[in-house]
Amino acid sequence: MLSLQDTLGVIHREIQAIQYPKTPSGLYEPIAYLLTLKGKKLRPAFTLLACNLYREDIEAAIRPALAWEIFHNFTLMHDDVMDKAELRRGQPTVHKKWSENTAILSGDAMLILSYIFMTKSLAEHLKPLLDLFSLTATEICEGQQYDMEFEQRLDVSEPEYIEMIRLKTAVMLGACLRTGAIIGGANETDRQNLYDFGIYLGIAFQIKDDLLDVYGNPDVFGKKTGGDILCNKKTYLLINALNSANITDKAELLKWLACDDKPEEKIIAVRSLYDKLAIPEKANETIRIFYEKALMALQAVSVDENKKKVLENIAKELMEREF
Amino acid sequence: MLSLQDTLGVIHREIQAIQYPKTPSGLYEPIAYLLTLKGKKLRPAFTLLACNLYREDIEAAIRPALAWEIFHNFTLMHDDVMDKAELRRGQPTVHKKWSENTAILSGDAMLILSYIFMTKSLAEHLKPLLDLFSLTATEICEGQQYDMEFEQRLDVSEPEYIEMIRLKTAVMLGACLRTGAIIGGANETDRQNLYDFGIYLGIAFQIKDDLLDVYGNPDVFGKKTGGDILCNKKTYLLINALNSANITDKAELLKWLACDDKPEEKIIAVRSLYDKLAIPEKANETIRIFYEKALMALQAVSVDENKKKVLENIAKELMEREF
Repeated sequence: MLSLQDTLGVIHREIQAIQYPKTPSGLYEPIAYLLTLKGKKLRPAFTLLACNLYREDIEAAIRPALAWEIFHNFTLMHDDVMDKAELRRGQPTVHKKWSENTAILSGDAMLILSYIFMTKSLAEHLKPLLDLFSLTATEICEGQQYDMEFEQRLDVSEPEYIEMIRLKTAVMLGACLRTGAIIGGANETDRQNLYDFGIYLGIAFQIKDDLLDVYGNPDVFGKKTGGDILCNKKTYLLINALNSANITDKAELLKWLACDDKPEEKIIAVRSLYDKLAIPEKANETIRIFYEKALMALQAVSVDENKKKVLENIAKELMEREF
Repeated sequence: MLSLQDTLGVIHREIQAIQYPKTPSGLYEPIAYLLTLKGKKLRPAFTLLACNLYREDIEAAIRPALAWEIFHNFTLMHDDVMDKAELRRGQPTVHKKWSENTAILSGDAMLILSYIFMTKSLAEHLKPLLDLFSLTATEICEGQQYDMEFEQRLDVSEPEYIEMIRLKTAVMLGACLRTGAIIGGANETDRQNLYDFGIYLGIAFQIKDDLLDVYGNPDVFGKKTGGDILCNKKTYLLINALNSANITDKAELLKWLACDDKPEEKIIAVRSLYDKLAIPEKANETIRIFYEKALMALQAVSVDENKKKVLENIAKELMEREF
């Protein structure tokens, strides 16, 4: 059995070993830059760990795992352009360091590169892995589209929000696990249960992220809290506040949404409204529900309990994190 | 034997028949919009015609042919953002009609869609077709990168320019033909000769395009000539003028490159310099050389002469066009 640390070691080594063409360096340098920024590398680890549930030798899963990590970073490169983000993992985003055109084109090359890695899977798995990859990739685009559309709306419902984060965030975790399960030789029931584990965990993870952005400990969280409030991001907290506030509170909330010149006061005021409306409690309850669904799905995977501990512990740490 | 018209009929029918998910419509409408704009549809026709050289039944080539057309349109959607183009085939570009973010994201979904269509090829062809597709797609990104880098340079050599248009334009034509040849069952020599036919034709085609933008008959060409001159595009004509002008002519040319407030005079002046330096003659000679290389490659393809007429005629029409 491999530990999370073992798999991360493999992934770091393989990412460092990627050979890019020497020219045009303007196309390839941004790809290497983003891929080697410090990051959790959770997605490729999931692929390797899921494979490892069924077989000791995870060699065949390495390139598909990298395909997912490259794909994930492609989405970050393009999303950062669309969101006009200046920092990624504490470093300048590609479009800030180079240019928007560079981020668009290097992102395209990165999406193609992710397919190149996925195509290097064993012939017997090629078709199912590519079908899963393309389906999931399309869903992630749909999730980003909904996320952008939500920016223009004040009436996003909770189910709509959950569906958006399922598409934008959770399906990739599910698909990474399913990829490993396919390569490992799992039966269809196990594949689906591992996929569901990833989906539920991904949803819980994203709502936790929304919560930490407002209530996280800034010393541990590593960035100032309140960023989502300042840019009026339609998080789980904001859509629930908009949907549950009475007329007076909603007017107050809308007033703060329209305000962009008093950042400190805005964060405090919106956080107070969230507190008053018991939004953190609601968020924690939803996180708990999805976390338990995730654990139940993992429970149903028909391999030795001991082998599943590594995935269970990752889930637990994600849920207990304060950053 | 199918005619060009036959294949175009198939392609139009299949493009109309593509079923997009209903939601999010903001993601899929721009894809359908761009794909159904009037266009030559030459690339998928090449795939079907190349396949038809070897077998009557071209069914297996249809989805890979569509993959190329979808991929081609993805490059147009993103290139138009990068070039800040306002019109495409006489209609507003996607980023003008919707937004830049829409063009980025729908373009991404379109690139994924092209892989979905390519993955629908027969199992026996899946790996070679995907390898060809990804390699070519990467080369096209490299071509676009060189094209953007050339905008910042005044010292682009002719070989550098030819290499750029080989990557940006020609490899796709070659790969479309090779795709059809693979599916048709051609041997490796034929595959390579058809690929070379596409490469040489593509290079000749692009230089012809550069020439027509300055010297085309505007009544036939369908758009005003001189657009490339106005935006200082590094065309075959401009890089050759920069490289062959004496000090006086080069100073004159650089003066006009720096001028952006006298469009009519700029076009006339730069065209006069091209004439003086015999650039059109040089361009026509280079076009002729590549056109003949294309015909020689086609000649070497080991199928009945009659069958090859359709490709030969397309090449001839492309070279004789005044638009």
